[in-house]
Amino acid sequence: MKSSGIITLLTDFGLSDPYVGVVKGVILGINPVARLVDITHTIPPGAVLDAACVLLESYDFFPKGTVHLSIVDPGVGSGRRPIAVQAGNQFFVGPDNGLFHPIMKRFPSVRVVQLLEKKYFLPEISATFHGRDIFAPVAAHLSLSLELGLLGPFIDDPVPLSISQPIQEGHLLIGEVLRVDHFGNLITNLHRETLEPFTRKSRVVIRIGNLRIDGVRNSYSEAEPGEVLALVGSDNRLEIAVNLGRACDLDELGPESSVGLQVEVKRIPL
Amino acid sequence: MKSSGIITLLTDFGLSDPYVGVVKGVILGINPVARLVDITHTIPPGAVLDAACVLLESYDFFPKGTVHLSIVDPGVGSGRRPIAVQAGNQFFVGPDNGLFHPIMKRFPSVRVVQLLEKKYFLPEISATFHGRDIFAPVAAHLSLSLELGLLGPFIDDPVPLSISQPIQEGHLLIGEVLRVDHFGNLITNLHRETLEPFTRKSRVVIRIGNLRIDGVRNSYSEAEPGEVLALVGSDNRLEIAVNLGRACDLDELGPESSVGLQVEVKRIPL
Amino acid sequence: MKSSGIITLLTDFGLSDPYVGVVKGVILGINPVARLVDITHTIPPGAVLDAACVLLESYDFFPKGTVHLSIVDPGVGSGRRPIAVQAGNQFFVGPDNGLFHPIMKRFPSVRVVQLLEKKYFLPEISATFHGRDIFAPVAAHLSLSLELGLLGPFIDDPVPLSISQPIQEGHLLIGEVLRVDHFGNLITNLHRETLEPFTRKSRVVIRIGNLRIDGVRNSYSEAEPGEVLALVGSDNRLEIAVNLGRACDLDELGPESSVGLQVEVKRIPL
Repeated sequence: MKSSGIITLLTDFGLSDPYVGVVKGVILGINPVARLVDITHTIPPGAVLDAACVLLESYDFFPKGTVHLSIVDPGVGSGRRPIAVQAGNQFFVGPDNGLFHPIMKRFPSVRVVQLLEKKYFLPEISATFHGRDIFAPVAAHLSLSLELGLLGPFIDDPVPLSISQPIQEGHLLIGEVLRVDHFGNLITNLHRETLEPFTRKSRVVIRIGNLRIDGVRNSYSEAEPGEVLALVGSDNRLEIAVNLGRACDLDELGPESSVGLQVEVKRIPL
Repeated sequence: MKSSGIITLLTDFGLSDPYVGVVKGVILGINPVARLVDITHTIPPGAVLDAACVLLESYDFFPKGTVHLSIVDPGVGSGRRPIAVQAGNQFFVGPDNGLFHPIMKRFPSVRVVQLLEKKYFLPEISATFHGRDIFAPVAAHLSLSLELGLLGPFIDDPVPLSISQPIQEGHLLIGEVLRVDHFGNLITNLHRETLEPFTRKSRVVIRIGNLRIDGVRNSYSEAEPGEVLALVGSDNRLEIAVNLGRACDLDELGPESSVGLQVEVKRIPL
Repeated sequence: MKSSGIITLLTDFGLSDPYVGVVKGVILGINPVARLVDITHTIPPGAVLDAACVLLESYDFFPKGTVHLSIVDPGVGSGRRPIAVQAGNQFFVGPDNGLFHPIMKRFPSVRVVQLLEKKYFLPEISATFHGRDIFAPVAAHLSLSLELGLLGPFIDDPVPLSISQPIQEGHLLIGEVLRVDHFGNLITNLHRETLEPFTRKSRVVIRIGNLRIDGVRNSYSEAEPGEVLALVGSDNRLEIAVNLGRACDLDELGPESSVGLQVEVKRIPL
């Protein structure tokens, strides 16, 4: 598959250190015309699940043949394998720690190689910054349309990662808050397809913390300013939001962090 | 007008979520050689006035034919219109909520279209993320030199936005602090042209909070380290600053936030 | 030397104001195909030493002929000179305040010019934003392979900057923490080459605050989760770290900020 020439970057490096810039310098040294797009660099350090969720929401909006360089790598320097993946029409480069697993599960067949061919690495490999020494140069080579199979042997046992799945119990659907976004919206694991049998022909009531929300709206502005609402967000998952406010700061959610709250959707037959 | 191939991005999306990256992915899917420049993504959520001020300070430094994609859109999903604007030699794409109004007022004639031609949108339009589904693809098409008039009908009633204007009362000029910048400087709405009749032939005294500042300096370093000063900043507006310090943290400004403080410039005839 | 067409940006402008975007707009107005790479914009305001350390860690990973535009400029508007530097196979543009001095010291001969040729500046020069008016346009011209000597006269007395150097006292090596990175790792001024005579043939003990650390590891994951360790990091300097944690938050480091802590490496002959 031909490369789009685009490389996205998703890391937990933050924005204060030179690490992101250094990774970009290495890439441009190999592919001077690579187009670099930051997804985010503020994944909490080592939070593989957060990174996997963010990548899952974004990879699909890039042209085919894009290389997604994703470096959240708490196991750097240990035995964890460095890998490159082709899934659908996109490439992924990073550590084999589950980061790409939710995307791989979407495709009937994927190709995964363990990165072993040192000629595609920097000449010296540190024990602590494989992002710079292994992943960045490999991503650059893939963006030059290098054949995946030249990077190392194919493997069939990439490390899995489980994102919690909703549970259905009769008229009840039980999900979780996966993350809180910048606007304070609570993004749940309840996908539009899971919800549809519930919302299509019946009224639903949503419970989260001490909140009870009637029905699913179409947009934030359908609620009054300051009103709590539920809607299916732009990534097709149920969100709890406050119009022109921050749902995550609501007292009714209780003293704990919002993430991990249970969300119940109850179908009320008409 | 020919496009420069540059698209700037100004949003309230923050830097933690994948939203900015997704918008860039959509753009590059339509115009693979677009050059993307971030203005800022840390506008406070929904703060249209802040976004308008920041855009007003920056758009003019870009080559002609640049497309400014500005998404601060608290009314997304409501009836507010999506628009594209040509003002001077630049293009603007975003919601019709006043964001571009201060720029439009600078030009005797501007062209504004309501975005209605769905063939320039993504195939599916969500109710909550028009930045991705409408504004990004339209900006990408404009950066390919698409004719503005093909995007929808011209309109002549864009939503206005008022930035507070200074008041002159005899020897007194009364203005406001519009925003506090990263260095803690207080940026006012007193423009160089408004000030000049005051400062050219007379001594001036500036009052803000409990502070009294004598005269207008030319640069921060004309004051002693830690000294409060007034100067006309790089965007030609009066700033209150502390050399090597943060004016916004001064006790003399009183208990309230610095933004909204009244600034008085008094002309003292020689 | 031919330009790589790449310009890196390192500033203390933060990410909320339009200043970084404006600098990029000015560059693209002169060199529309410049490729722009952010190193960081979150250097503490005016912190020349921090900026110098970050640049020292990163410049070398960029292709030869890259222009490094570095604007941490507390003396803007004073008499400090604007300069451009060629050191090794890279260019540097910014204020003459020591920012580039640690890099210059690495090379037997460097070329430094004072920026005086106004035709390479913006037409109007403000007193407060030379980043936009002088440094950005000069960097853009250098990225178009303009000859360095055309920018102004060569000078041989650039302002020096001293980064604290370790002291050796018999079996003891005394260094300092230079900065704390995003992961909470304490980066010291003890370079691999300084350490090697100590670590090669003997056991070492490291003291910092009230901590005592035995030996130097190769990677974070060689320690238990939560364990304190010392290792030589990816920029070849001794780091104090906690596997999957933040060394800078350790109680044993004492009440003061970690930066400036003294680090002792004691060689214990076998």
